[in-house]
Amino acid sequence: MQPERVKGTRDFPPEEMKLREKVVSTIKKVYEKRGFVELQTPAIEKWETLSAKNAGGEELLNETFNWMDQGERRIGLRYDLTVPMIRYIAMNPNLSLPFKRYQYGPVWRYEKIREGRYREFYQFDIDVIGSSSMLADAECISAACEALESVGIKDFIVKINNRKIVESLLKALGIKQKEQLEGAMRTIDKMQKLPETELAKEFAEYRITKQTADEIIRILNKRGKAEILIDRLKLQQETLGIKLDGIAELEQLISYLREFGCISKIEIDLSIVRGIAYYTGVVYETYVKKNENLGSICSGGRYDNLLNEFLGKQIPATGISIGIERILDILRETEKVDFGIDYFIAVVNQDEKSIGAGIKILNQLRAQNLSAEIDLMGRSFNSQMKYADKINANKVVIVGPKELEEGKVIVKDMKTGKEEKRAIGAI
Amino acid sequence: MQPERVKGTRDFPPEEMKLREKVVSTIKKVYEKRGFVELQTPAIEKWETLSAKNAGGEELLNETFNWMDQGERRIGLRYDLTVPMIRYIAMNPNLSLPFKRYQYGPVWRYEKIREGRYREFYQFDIDVIGSSSMLADAECISAACEALESVGIKDFIVKINNRKIVESLLKALGIKQKEQLEGAMRTIDKMQKLPETELAKEFAEYRITKQTADEIIRILNKRGKAEILIDRLKLQQETLGIKLDGIAELEQLISYLREFGCISKIEIDLSIVRGIAYYTGVVYETYVKKNENLGSICSGGRYDNLLNEFLGKQIPATGISIGIERILDILRETEKVDFGIDYFIAVVNQDEKSIGAGIKILNQLRAQNLSAEIDLMGRSFNSQMKYADKINANKVVIVGPKELEEGKVIVKDMKTGKEEKRAIGAI
Repeated sequence: MQPERVKGTRDFPPEEMKLREKVVSTIKKVYEKRGFVELQTPAIEKWETLSAKNAGGEELLNETFNWMDQGERRIGLRYDLTVPMIRYIAMNPNLSLPFKRYQYGPVWRYEKIREGRYREFYQFDIDVIGSSSMLADAECISAACEALESVGIKDFIVKINNRKIVESLLKALGIKQKEQLEGAMRTIDKMQKLPETELAKEFAEYRITKQTADEIIRILNKRGKAEILIDRLKLQQETLGIKLDGIAELEQLISYLREFGCISKIEIDLSIVRGIAYYTGVVYETYVKKNENLGSICSGGRYDNLLNEFLGKQIPATGISIGIERILDILRETEKVDFGIDYFIAVVNQDEKSIGAGIKILNQLRAQNLSAEIDLMGRSFNSQMKYADKINANKVVIVGPKELEEGKVIVKDMKTGKEEKRAIGAI
Repeated sequence: MQPERVKGTRDFPPEEMKLREKVVSTIKKVYEKRGFVELQTPAIEKWETLSAKNAGGEELLNETFNWMDQGERRIGLRYDLTVPMIRYIAMNPNLSLPFKRYQYGPVWRYEKIREGRYREFYQFDIDVIGSSSMLADAECISAACEALESVGIKDFIVKINNRKIVESLLKALGIKQKEQLEGAMRTIDKMQKLPETELAKEFAEYRITKQTADEIIRILNKRGKAEILIDRLKLQQETLGIKLDGIAELEQLISYLREFGCISKIEIDLSIVRGIAYYTGVVYETYVKKNENLGSICSGGRYDNLLNEFLGKQIPATGISIGIERILDILRETEKVDFGIDYFIAVVNQDEKSIGAGIKILNQLRAQNLSAEIDLMGRSFNSQMKYADKINANKVVIVGPKELEEGKVIVKDMKTGKEEKRAIGAI
């Protein structure tokens, strides 16, 4: 048979796993230092959970792997880590708040196969459940900034906005009907990607005139330093004679981020609204300065209504998700991972006595927490030396018959080529 | 809506994750020290892979979650980590041998729900691909022994056998037809679980007489120290006038295990054959001495023919799988995991100045790699202190208005109750 993977899935060979483990454990440490705790949920969820109101939405559900199980119940593979977390919170109503959790794990979506997109990919989320304070958002954003820096990504910018500003602007411009509002938000989300003529066309689909569309673009197509943008927004309120919601929240968030010491990484971008419908307030996306086309490497925001559907009561929540696959794509090009072993034991004669001595040496080295391997293939001495080189052994212990009679072996340093005779037991 | 998990799946809350991460990372270190490298494969595999000849077999396939995806291809969730690894090896024919890999990850089976059985559960496997030497088996067994001991499980015994011995005995007793042979092997696998009358009934189903069944049980129902059992087997050959295969292999394996220093954990049990059909030689199961009813916590063996189906050529292989769920069930009762945080910052007055000072202190502590949290709920001072207690904070920094005017805060040791006034910047 011709063995194949499922399209859009990947194997992670040892070198890739080394890099992943390094990056993931570094980020975990940052989050744990900030009091986030780890949650893990199953890969499979009931269809009722995945398709709950305000959860994934139709587009995502079309991409969701789902089936009837052997017990005739519809189940599916999770498409994100947020909906399962909320299901967990709903099942544990006595959970102490704030619940600050992190989760790293695979999610599955039947997406169109293209460069950098997979049907099984990993997400790394943090969320703060239970707090409506901008301090919670500031904690998430500054945690993500520290996480990115800790893995070696320094040259990025977090673009922040508040959907409340955009929504109140749209309403002030006469866009009040729900469908029209949602359509306008989705179009604004594409403002940095589509040319103006395309944008106008999309706006027109939601019965928004060219004049209003131009006005929306003129006001929202602005990004820059937080204090400047906030001042400008305040001025705008006066010139337009409208009241924009959410400016105070944004101001508060910026002030906290300044205290957290990460303000140099922050700007306000009034066109950021995020595609997902459940966001209710501040939203954020993160771009690598040298390559904005890569897309956001870290996104999130506040979703104060999402828990309502599951819990029947309002619990505020905010969170940020690191695009770990994109991060790894960046790091794979620059980051070197150590690969190798401290000692390889080469046995000149493959007899019981030599192998026995080899195992004794293995035991000694491993007991000292050194990594060590012995030939398992019954290979010739030359082949063993080639293999030692291949697995990047630091030193090779050569168990030769003559030395063995004296209770000794030769230790070869593979970098310098220097050989030394040593007593077994004193390697 | 009433939120529910899929039956047989679990959420792992933070305390459970702490224990899991500790156990898994400890075992990983042991395996890496021995030159095993990590592989990760997708959760989903093509049905052709999962149902390949010599792979899972009918029973396992009935339990396999599978469905037609949006592109009308049948895929399924992996039921073990072995078959995906072999698919990986088949897709990478130039992989350098021996390939010593470890993999930890979830697998899925639609099994009957009962105590200690889950439909999503984790496996932790090591395998050596490419070596036919008993040294490879000894490496796997001694690695698993060290892994178990490293996580605190000391009181166990690895029971070893060689299917070749059993098969040649059966053949000598006239059981030669394939179906009869396989049936007898499955029955022998139940020797320690079923009463003799039940065993005889099962043997009868495969047209094995009571007399022959008694003879099989009499010869194979033996366990004990390796050297004694091997001597007895040799004697048995003479008294029965038959030649038993696989004794030399077993003898060789035992000799290597002696060199590896783990012989005290080893016995031979002639009734061990393992249920899975693909094993071809030595097989092993591991039991906790105090509680054999728990079942095997670590099992494996040699499967020299399994790669053939995928590769079209014979590559010898052997491996051992730690029953990580059972291990965790044991450890959960005894093992305490540290839970807590170094510092909680309690803000007496929830004003900008106090919160600002609180964030500065957070930054300082975290920069020293200490874990620290601040109140995100705008709670009263008393509630904050209760929360600090709940999250097991080691110390609380109290930001009070009076002290703040002097540039100071109070640091409270939560164990001793002692309070000290300290300058901000010298905590």
